[in-house]
Amino acid sequence: MGSLPLDALQPLDPDTFAADSSAVVDFLAGYYRDVDKYPVRAADLEPGRLRRLLPEAAPEFGEPAERILADVRRDVLPGLTHWQSPSFFAYFPMNASAAGFAGEMLSVGLNVVPFMWVASPAAVELEAVVVDWMARLVGLPDRFLFSGSGGGGGGGVLQGSTCEAVVCTLAAARDRALGRIGHEGIVKLVVYASDQTHATFQKGARLVGITPANFRVVPTAAASGYALTGAAVRAAVEGDVARGLVPLYLCATVGTTGIGAVDPVRELGEVARRHGMWLHVDAAYAGSAAICPEYQGYLDGAELADSVSMNPHKWFLTNMDCCCLWVASPAALTAALSTDPEYLKNAGGGKPQAAAGAGAIDYKDWQISLSRRFRAMKLWFVLRRYGAAGMRAHIRRHVAMAEWFERAVSADERFEVVAKRRFSLVCFRLRGGGGGGDAMNRELLAAVNASGRAFMTHFVVEGKFVIRLAVGGAMTEMRHVGDAWELVQRTAEQLLQRR
Amino acid sequence: MGSLPLDALQPLDPDTFAADSSAVVDFLAGYYRDVDKYPVRAADLEPGRLRRLLPEAAPEFGEPAERILADVRRDVLPGLTHWQSPSFFAYFPMNASAAGFAGEMLSVGLNVVPFMWVASPAAVELEAVVVDWMARLVGLPDRFLFSGSGGGGGGGVLQGSTCEAVVCTLAAARDRALGRIGHEGIVKLVVYASDQTHATFQKGARLVGITPANFRVVPTAAASGYALTGAAVRAAVEGDVARGLVPLYLCATVGTTGIGAVDPVRELGEVARRHGMWLHVDAAYAGSAAICPEYQGYLDGAELADSVSMNPHKWFLTNMDCCCLWVASPAALTAALSTDPEYLKNAGGGKPQAAAGAGAIDYKDWQISLSRRFRAMKLWFVLRRYGAAGMRAHIRRHVAMAEWFERAVSADERFEVVAKRRFSLVCFRLRGGGGGGDAMNRELLAAVNASGRAFMTHFVVEGKFVIRLAVGGAMTEMRHVGDAWELVQRTAEQLLQRR
Repeated sequence: MGSLPLDALQPLDPDTFAADSSAVVDFLAGYYRDVDKYPVRAADLEPGRLRRLLPEAAPEFGEPAERILADVRRDVLPGLTHWQSPSFFAYFPMNASAAGFAGEMLSVGLNVVPFMWVASPAAVELEAVVVDWMARLVGLPDRFLFSGSGGGGGGGVLQGSTCEAVVCTLAAARDRALGRIGHEGIVKLVVYASDQTHATFQKGARLVGITPANFRVVPTAAASGYALTGAAVRAAVEGDVARGLVPLYLCATVGTTGIGAVDPVRELGEVARRHGMWLHVDAAYAGSAAICPEYQGYLDGAELADSVSMNPHKWFLTNMDCCCLWVASPAALTAALSTDPEYLKNAGGGKPQAAAGAGAIDYKDWQISLSRRFRAMKLWFVLRRYGAAGMRAHIRRHVAMAEWFERAVSADERFEVVAKRRFSLVCFRLRGGGGGGDAMNRELLAAVNASGRAFMTHFVVEGKFVIRLAVGGAMTEMRHVGDAWELVQRTAEQLLQRR
Repeated sequence: MGSLPLDALQPLDPDTFAADSSAVVDFLAGYYRDVDKYPVRAADLEPGRLRRLLPEAAPEFGEPAERILADVRRDVLPGLTHWQSPSFFAYFPMNASAAGFAGEMLSVGLNVVPFMWVASPAAVELEAVVVDWMARLVGLPDRFLFSGSGGGGGGGVLQGSTCEAVVCTLAAARDRALGRIGHEGIVKLVVYASDQTHATFQKGARLVGITPANFRVVPTAAASGYALTGAAVRAAVEGDVARGLVPLYLCATVGTTGIGAVDPVRELGEVARRHGMWLHVDAAYAGSAAICPEYQGYLDGAELADSVSMNPHKWFLTNMDCCCLWVASPAALTAALSTDPEYLKNAGGGKPQAAAGAGAIDYKDWQISLSRRFRAMKLWFVLRRYGAAGMRAHIRRHVAMAEWFERAVSADERFEVVAKRRFSLVCFRLRGGGGGGDAMNRELLAAVNASGRAFMTHFVVEGKFVIRLAVGGAMTEMRHVGDAWELVQRTAEQLLQRR
C-alpha cells in the first residue's frame, strides 16, 4: 500500500485498490464484531473534540491507508453514535447489511451515472425493474408499475430520501395546478397534513414556494389512534375553498415518526379525489412491513393516491441512501422536473428518448438533481441475496421483539404503553400525571442514554413526554431488547427511590 | 457464503460480510483491469434488453453472492456505459479512486446518519473540518470557512449535487427577500444567469417557485469568451427594476458545462451587491483545478459572493456523490431550511444545539433532506491518501493531456478548436461552414462513439455543432488521448472520402 510518489499517482491501480479495499473490509468486519462494546450514543459529547484533534489544513503529501484507518479507529469511532449497534433504538433504524454493502460497493466502484438512459442503459433498466419488484412486494396497484398485468402506466424511481420525494411530487402537483390557474395563483395553493406528519413535509412545501400561511396542520386525537380523518381534512378543505384558496396536496402517512400512527389511505384518497388534490402516501418506515401480507391492509386505497414512497434504507437492509418513489403519472412528474439542454441531447447516436415506454427512461427528469448514483444495484443485491422470504422473516423478527417489549412494559404497573404499537416501534412512559411525570421520564431517558448501553429518543403525545423504542437493527437480537428493558427498569427504580 | 436459511438471516454477520465483500473487491479489481476492453458507451443500445433478461418479480429465496456477481458480469456490465473507462471523454469526468472507494466503504459500512450533531458528533465535525480544508485548498476567502484566521463566520456542507446546492441557496435568497416584501411578492422575484449556465439552474429556480417568466437568460458572445458580462447583467436588472420586479439571485459559473467558459466573479459580484442580489458561484467542474495556484485567479472576487459550490465527485477522485457548498451566512441558509420537530429535540441528554459555533452543527438545516450520508469520510480519505500535492499533480496531468489534444487539433488544418480551452475540456470540429459542416460533425461524433473505443459528447456554440472531449478519468493516460485523436482523424478521413 505505502505512500505513492507524485509521478505515479494511479488512483485506480487494481492492486492498490484491492489492498486498500481489503484493509477496509477487515476494519469493518472487526467493527461489526465489536460494535456492541462501544457506547451506543457517542460518549464524549463535547463539541469540537474531533476538530481539535485534526490539523487546520489538508496534508501536503499522501499517506498509506493503514495510517488513515488507524486514525479512524482512534479519533473518529469514539465520537460516533453507533447506528449499527444492536442496542440502537433511537429515531428509526437505518439498516446496513452484507448484501446492501456489497451492492453499494459495486455501485460505488462502477461509479456510473444513470441520469439518462444512454449514459448507462443497464443501470437505468435495473432501477426500473427493481422498483417494480418492490411495488409488487408491498402490494401496490398496477398503476404504480412500469409493467403491470393491467399494463402499468406509472413507474418508480430511487431517490435519496422521502424529503426529495415529497419535494418532487409537490412540484408536480403545483405545476399541474398553476397550469390551470396561472403562476400568480401560487400564493393560493394549500397543503394538508396532520400534526403527526413528518416535519420535513412542511419544509418541502416551503421549498417549492407554498406560502407558510397555507400549510394546514390538521389535529389528530387518541380516539382515531392519532390518524388523520377524512372528516377533519374535508372540513379544512371546505373552509379554504370558501375563502378562495386552492387545495393542492394531501400527505397521508403509514407509520408516523412519532408513534407509528397510520392514516386511512382510502378515506383520505376519496377526499383528495373530490377536491382535485394530489395524494401522497408516505410509508417511509412502515412500508417495509408491507412486504408481509398481514400489513398490506394499511395500504388499502393506494389506487386513489398519486404517489407513494418508502425507504429501504430504514428497515429493509439497504445501506443509506435509498427511497422508492412511485407515481401514477410519470408525465406529471417529468413536466415539472425535465430539462433538455443541448449538451445532453443524444446527438452522438443511440436510440431516441421517445423509447421511454420500452425502458429508456431519463431519470434526471424524475428527481431534483441531474446527476445520480446507481442505487438500484444495492436494492437488487439485497432482494436477491435474502429473497422475499428472508426479508419477511427479518421484518417479523423485529416486530416480535417489539411485541415482547410492549408486553413487558404492560406487565409492569409502574409503566404504560402510550399509543397502539403497530409495527416495531413501542412508545412508553413511567406513569405519573402532569409535569412531574414528564420530568421523571426525561430524566429516565437521559440516564438510559448516558449509560451508553442503549440509545432511545422521545416524542410528545398530547403534551405527554413518551420514550420511543424503535426495534429494527440488523444485529439486534432478543437479548438486546431484553437488556434494554432491564436497563430501563433498573434506571427507573433508582430514579423512583431518589424521589 | 452460500444461501442463508431463513431462521439464520444474520445480515451483518462479520464472516459473511467479509466473504461477500472480498468477492466484490476481487470483482471490481478485475473490472478495473479489464475496463478498457469494454465498448466505452454501452454497445447494445436496444431499450429493454436488461428488463427482458430479468424476472418480473423478486426471488422468493436468497441466493449466494457469487451467483449475483456472475449475473452482474453477464447481464449488467455489457449494458453499462463505462464512466471509469480511460477512454471516457463525455460529459464531465466522474472520478473514482481507490481512496474515494475506501472512504465511501467506511461511510457505507458505519452507516451513521450525521443529520444532527448528537446523532453522530465525529461525523459532523469531520465534515466541518474537511469543507474548511477544501475551502483553503481552492483559496476561498475566510468568510466561507467555519474557522479562518479572520474568524471564519461562514461554513460549508457536503451535498449530493450542484442542483441541491442551487436549490438550497435559492430558497435562502428567496426567503430573505420575501421577509422584506411579503410572500405575495414571490411572483416578482427574478433570477439571472447566462445562456451558458447549466440548465439545472432554471430547474432549481422553478423548483423553489420562481415564475418561469422571471428567468433571465443573458446572452454571451465569442468576444468575451462566452462569459457573462457585468454590463449585460446590469442592463437586464435595470430593466426588471424599472418594471417593478425584484432582482433575487445571480448565478456565475467558473467552467461552464458546454465549453468551459469562466464568468468574471468580481465584476458580477459588484453588480449583485449594488442590486441586493444573492451571488452564487458554480465551480462544479473547474473548482477542482483551483487547488493549483495557476487557476485560483478564476475565483478572484469570491469575497463578493454569498455562496460557492464545487463537486469533488467530478474531477477530484471522490466517488459519487459529493458537492461542497460554502455559504457566507449559514443563518440565511438555515432560516430557509430548518425544522425542529419534537422527536428531534435533544431531550435525551447531550449538549444544547446552541453550541453550533463550537462545531455542534445540525446539518439537516443546511440541505433539502433530513437524513444524509457520511460523505466527509471519503473526501477526507482522498485528501489524506493523495495529499494536496498528489491532487495538484492529478489535475495538471489531465490539463497537460488536454493541451496536447488541443495542439494536435490545431495542427490539423481540417479541424478547428472552438472556444478557448481553459481546463481539461477541448471543444473542436471539422471545419466546413453551415449546416453541411454540422451534419458532418454529427456523423463524425456518432461514428466515434459507435466504435466503442471512445465516448465524447457535443455542444452547440452560436449555432455550430462542436464535439467536446473532456479529459479527467482516473485511468486516462496520454496513450488513451492519443488513441482518441487517431480515432477522430481516421473516422474523419473516411467521412471526407465518402463525400
